[in-house]
Amino acid sequence: MKKGRLEAFSDGVIAIIITIMVLELKIPHDDTVTALVPLFPIFISYLLSFIYLAIYWNNHHHMLQVVESVNGTILWANINLLFWLSLIPFVTGWMGENHFTTWPVAFYGFVLFMNAVSYTILVRTLVKHHGNNSILSKAIGKDSKGKVSLVLYFTAIIMAFINAWVSFGIYILVAIIWIVPDKRIEKRIGQGDM
Amino acid sequence: MKKGRLEAFSDGVIAIIITIMVLELKIPHDDTVTALVPLFPIFISYLLSFIYLAIYWNNHHHMLQVVESVNGTILWANINLLFWLSLIPFVTGWMGENHFTTWPVAFYGFVLFMNAVSYTILVRTLVKHHGNNSILSKAIGKDSKGKVSLVLYFTAIIMAFINAWVSFGIYILVAIIWIVPDKRIEKRIGQGDM
Amino acid sequence: MKKGRLEAFSDGVIAIIITIMVLELKIPHDDTVTALVPLFPIFISYLLSFIYLAIYWNNHHHMLQVVESVNGTILWANINLLFWLSLIPFVTGWMGENHFTTWPVAFYGFVLFMNAVSYTILVRTLVKHHGNNSILSKAIGKDSKGKVSLVLYFTAIIMAFINAWVSFGIYILVAIIWIVPDKRIEKRIGQGDM
Amino acid sequence: MKKGRLEAFSDGVIAIIITIMVLELKIPHDDTVTALVPLFPIFISYLLSFIYLAIYWNNHHHMLQVVESVNGTILWANINLLFWLSLIPFVTGWMGENHFTTWPVAFYGFVLFMNAVSYTILVRTLVKHHGNNSILSKAIGKDSKGKVSLVLYFTAIIMAFINAWVSFGIYILVAIIWIVPDKRIEKRIGQGDM
Repeated sequence: MKKGRLEAFSDGVIAIIITIMVLELKIPHDDTVTALVPLFPIFISYLLSFIYLAIYWNNHHHMLQVVESVNGTILWANINLLFWLSLIPFVTGWMGENHFTTWPVAFYGFVLFMNAVSYTILVRTLVKHHGNNSILSKAIGKDSKGKVSLVLYFTAIIMAFINAWVSFGIYILVAIIWIVPDKRIEKRIGQGDM
Repeated sequence: MKKGRLEAFSDGVIAIIITIMVLELKIPHDDTVTALVPLFPIFISYLLSFIYLAIYWNNHHHMLQVVESVNGTILWANINLLFWLSLIPFVTGWMGENHFTTWPVAFYGFVLFMNAVSYTILVRTLVKHHGNNSILSKAIGKDSKGKVSLVLYFTAIIMAFINAWVSFGIYILVAIIWIVPDKRIEKRIGQGDM
Repeated sequence: MKKGRLEAFSDGVIAIIITIMVLELKIPHDDTVTALVPLFPIFISYLLSFIYLAIYWNNHHHMLQVVESVNGTILWANINLLFWLSLIPFVTGWMGENHFTTWPVAFYGFVLFMNAVSYTILVRTLVKHHGNNSILSKAIGKDSKGKVSLVLYFTAIIMAFINAWVSFGIYILVAIIWIVPDKRIEKRIGQGDM
Repeated sequence: MKKGRLEAFSDGVIAIIITIMVLELKIPHDDTVTALVPLFPIFISYLLSFIYLAIYWNNHHHMLQVVESVNGTILWANINLLFWLSLIPFVTGWMGENHFTTWPVAFYGFVLFMNAVSYTILVRTLVKHHGNNSILSKAIGKDSKGKVSLVLYFTAIIMAFINAWVSFGIYILVAIIWIVPDKRIEKRIGQGDM
């Protein structure tokens, strides 16, 4: 099967998820600048989740560039990823409104963890479908960034019960690790003119 | 007419429907893990409907792969399907918030039933347009899964007035039957490299 | 300029408009079938607007099939149409919640009227760009359906101040007139296999 | 990398942003025409922001026509633009509900300013990627409209503390300046038949 509609549907779902999060920034009734102050933690968690969703879209976009075809299992692995991404607005709002306390921060980490697992499953399914000698397989390589992220998310979930701000710092750290798009794939698909 | 925009528009509508359902998971004010407990039935009904919408998108996607062209009647059959799909978030929320009681569960079944009928109408319209010797027609075959689903939905609606949990079990059962994408079509369009 | 992104953006906006209307169907707290009764007028106005938006998407889709290229003026004529379409959810909700009384029904008609005017402007801009001998120009012809609709909408707005149900009947009538997709274009672009 | 999904994702996000703003037009409970009066400032700010978002989509669309390929940096420059665009619904609602008072009007200007900066960054990144002799580079030229806009937004932010209506007038002025799509690019990509 062609990959076109998988890309289009994923783009649609991620575009909506990334945009509806902004609805949590409830418009204040007051017109003073101080009326914005209570929104600040919500804004910060919105910003962080926006970046995470952008990273997922970015890597998804990069990876699909070297995908040649898809099958039914891949469609479901992709839908599983979209499901976990769809829970990000909820945990984002919960974390922001409660000013980064233990449980919301831990749950935020859990959803990020499940997203990372789901992305790994999608990658594996794609690699299996394309074979070990495919461009995709070589581009992914050992996926050390993916493995490190899983460990970091797990650490953050535990840390939330000691100091939630450390967990929050870990989420920022993982985002920074990923913010550079997957150079491995970009290199192999040519000098930007592919 | 080309099928491109029908696919794009359907992808857009289904992507929005599948995503706005998550807005029913209202963010709790409390930051304890117990604050999430009342959300559990809403989460379960969200999960079930997410899977149903994914199944529809998946089968729609598979079927459209072998469609060669569309006409005005097909566009309207497709819009009719999108209309019934658009009612899923409403019945999902109603069922989840009321903890799977009789009327919401029966209505949920009714909307699933109407979706199945609408999908069947779309299939028929497409088969008629492509002729009985088309790949599409052969791929659909007798559509026994479709017929069994209609009977199961009908049973679930009746059962809701005796024991709504049985109906809920039937909805899960139908989802499992469909979760495997239409191998019939996948086989005919090649070994996954089409 | 190519028409691809104009189609994609319009599909996106119309898909969102048609879907967010369903959010007006507020989930009742009660789980009885009588809890659905107050939603009935809202459902009816949702259904009517869903059909109108589907008609616009359908005709837009048909017309763009024979469009060869677009320019800046056409982009703005299209955006103007999208703006008026975006007001449909508001007037739909207002009309449904107030059980089809005078002012909401008149405003609903006004928005439909402005949409029809905007669509006519878009058609004119496209015809001007393609020339009088283009397939588009011949397919549109005298646009008598468009002119009749404008007169009917105008009548409905006036009638709302005498009997709003007559206006409502006129809206249904116009929808029926348009529900058949533009055979003029479909004929000229081939026997459905284009 | 190909530009297709960057266009599709941007179209999706902008389509959602432009549409969810209309949800701020809360449906009045009353069915009289006077019930609409309090909505008038919200409607005006919606209209202004709709036009701004349309301008961004339009210029984005025009610019991407002459883009040949993208890289990771461009993807992030584009995501940065989408982030600032996503804040428009919030400041639009805040400005409309508070009837164009100082702080909301200043913040509206600030978000427009950041959008203009982000768009400039995106343009620069694209020009750098394509080289100074590319069609894109020549089409952009000195970007005097972009520079004038930045100065005007800055003036409007300051003016908000003296007379917010002057700022509002400046926002309308900038919109008028931009409402004509980028003729520079349109000219270079042919007489409308490309």
